[in-house]
Amino acid sequence: MDFDADLPQHLERHLAAFLTEAGASVRAAQPAFGSGVDTLTGFVLGGGKRLRPTFAWWAWRGAGGDPHGPDAEGVLRAVASLELVQACALIHDDLIDSSDSRRGRPTVHVSYAREHRANGWLGAPETFGLAASVLIGDLALAWADDMFNSAPLPAATLDAARPAWRAMRTEVLAGQYLDVRTQATGDTSPEAALRVSRLKTAAYTVQRPLHLGAALAGADEQRIATLREFGDDLGVAFQLRDDLLGVFGDPSVTGKPAGDDLREGKRTLLVALGLQLAEDTEQHKLIADAIGADLADDEVDRVRRTLTEVGAVDAVEQRITALTGTALAALERASLAEPAATRLAELAELATQRTF
Amino acid sequence: MDFDADLPQHLERHLAAFLTEAGASVRAAQPAFGSGVDTLTGFVLGGGKRLRPTFAWWAWRGAGGDPHGPDAEGVLRAVASLELVQACALIHDDLIDSSDSRRGRPTVHVSYAREHRANGWLGAPETFGLAASVLIGDLALAWADDMFNSAPLPAATLDAARPAWRAMRTEVLAGQYLDVRTQATGDTSPEAALRVSRLKTAAYTVQRPLHLGAALAGADEQRIATLREFGDDLGVAFQLRDDLLGVFGDPSVTGKPAGDDLREGKRTLLVALGLQLAEDTEQHKLIADAIGADLADDEVDRVRRTLTEVGAVDAVEQRITALTGTALAALERASLAEPAATRLAELAELATQRTF
Repeated sequence: MDFDADLPQHLERHLAAFLTEAGASVRAAQPAFGSGVDTLTGFVLGGGKRLRPTFAWWAWRGAGGDPHGPDAEGVLRAVASLELVQACALIHDDLIDSSDSRRGRPTVHVSYAREHRANGWLGAPETFGLAASVLIGDLALAWADDMFNSAPLPAATLDAARPAWRAMRTEVLAGQYLDVRTQATGDTSPEAALRVSRLKTAAYTVQRPLHLGAALAGADEQRIATLREFGDDLGVAFQLRDDLLGVFGDPSVTGKPAGDDLREGKRTLLVALGLQLAEDTEQHKLIADAIGADLADDEVDRVRRTLTEVGAVDAVEQRITALTGTALAALERASLAEPAATRLAELAELATQRTF
Repeated sequence: MDFDADLPQHLERHLAAFLTEAGASVRAAQPAFGSGVDTLTGFVLGGGKRLRPTFAWWAWRGAGGDPHGPDAEGVLRAVASLELVQACALIHDDLIDSSDSRRGRPTVHVSYAREHRANGWLGAPETFGLAASVLIGDLALAWADDMFNSAPLPAATLDAARPAWRAMRTEVLAGQYLDVRTQATGDTSPEAALRVSRLKTAAYTVQRPLHLGAALAGADEQRIATLREFGDDLGVAFQLRDDLLGVFGDPSVTGKPAGDDLREGKRTLLVALGLQLAEDTEQHKLIADAIGADLADDEVDRVRRTLTEVGAVDAVEQRITALTGTALAALERASLAEPAATRLAELAELATQRTF
């Protein structure tokens, strides 16, 4: 088994095994919860780039983890559990944002509301959708811990990774909380946008998975700190690329409607810089009015042109380039073993230059 | 320090210590999340009967746990973490049920919606309340695991308790899921009501805490099975008392409006038996129409009289007596060390005979 070459497949094998194992005892005792378990299983196995466990795996490999050693399967299970944390984050986020679709399918709250409506059940379909999606998200979070804590690894190995595991789960919630508050208070500053990106993407998606993987390999404080520098800069760059794609991305490639981030009113650095650079002109008003508005396609085009004209797009592209540069320099300093160093550098390029 | 005599105080000491410790690092890194941490801390330390850790503690003591031994503080921390699971369950339940108040204070989603309204923030106050309460409940669930897993106990001791910990968290979610589905499908059978009680109260509130405590003391399978029998019967009896108080309780003692369970449309065994015993009479219609209706006080009185007349109240009281009897017989068979045996018997009486 070549874990390095077929990583996503092995991560999915562990996820499927855990979901089957955890699901079986619930189904036996509580058949009525079977549909809930099915929903979560379908969600987790139904897609996703497996980005967080991939970062964790390569940090483990780079810090000396042996893919042919006795810990390899245990590490796969421990890092795959990050996908269950992510399932909770996405299911609850979709509810909070009232999103209708995810990965081309109805979101969890929407599909439960539809089931309710189709059956003509009592009460409001939306309330049922809310209830079920809150509970399925909670189940994902509880099971993430169960999966992580039952990884077949020496107690000391899991203990070494616990600070990263703890920080990661608190930070993603802090990031979402901050995001919700920033949108509510209407803070349009570039600083607020960067704070949210640092927590939601840099810390949760890149930095802590790298920290977790390195800690599972017994890496020392110094190397972990250097890897976290790499992760912080890369994570912000990754989010900035996401922000650009959210406005300029080709719908046929991203799978999302054009200008989706604008309609959703996301407070991205791109928009924050656009407002700052436009100062008190007509362009400022055009951008400000577009946030959270139900824009027609030609209006999206106009906002795109404006963001480009005021220099916000260039500014974000320059930041991505600078952050990718400092990230790669930190990666170099972490002097990871090959092939991990090369693979992480490739991941960094991919994450910051992608068009999807 | 007399842990047995001052148990609630010691449980609260551990909760306060954990919340301060976990909160400090978040506050330092992310001041903006401080208000979220404050909300959770206030909620957890603001009240509650500490029932679940109390059952767990006495099971630990009864199975040989030494309150003067080296594990006592670690066990207090491990069992106190049940209160964080409960915080998640209550915060999310209040959101799902649209409850306005809890322990005489506004519920979490309501207090966030008020903060939003008072500040005139952007968007709908209710959406903000939903978002914040989902995230604060998630934080409680993540922190429950962090608290449990960082209890200073030998790895083998915590490992022995993990099956109970895992089952408990899945079962409370299964119970809430089943509850929501039962209300939606309008299943008014006594069987459905009992199934929900078994999961939401018997398993989660009594049986698994007992299992957890006994496992922490290294109890064998046989003793754990006997204690779980005690917990299952006691837990159902406890829920049936709760059902009676939800309809007949004195508001000045229960702190809830008279007939609150009727207005909320709860599918309790009391109501299910009322419907079954009334068959197809006027009384059946009166009970059926009362479920989930906005009843005036004299209408609540009429439903109370009807439930009594058809024999549902007597039937529930008889079940409580029978279940308490079989529970106490199982407790006897578990031959726990004193004073745990006496204290658990007292708790059983208190839980099934209470008026609050």
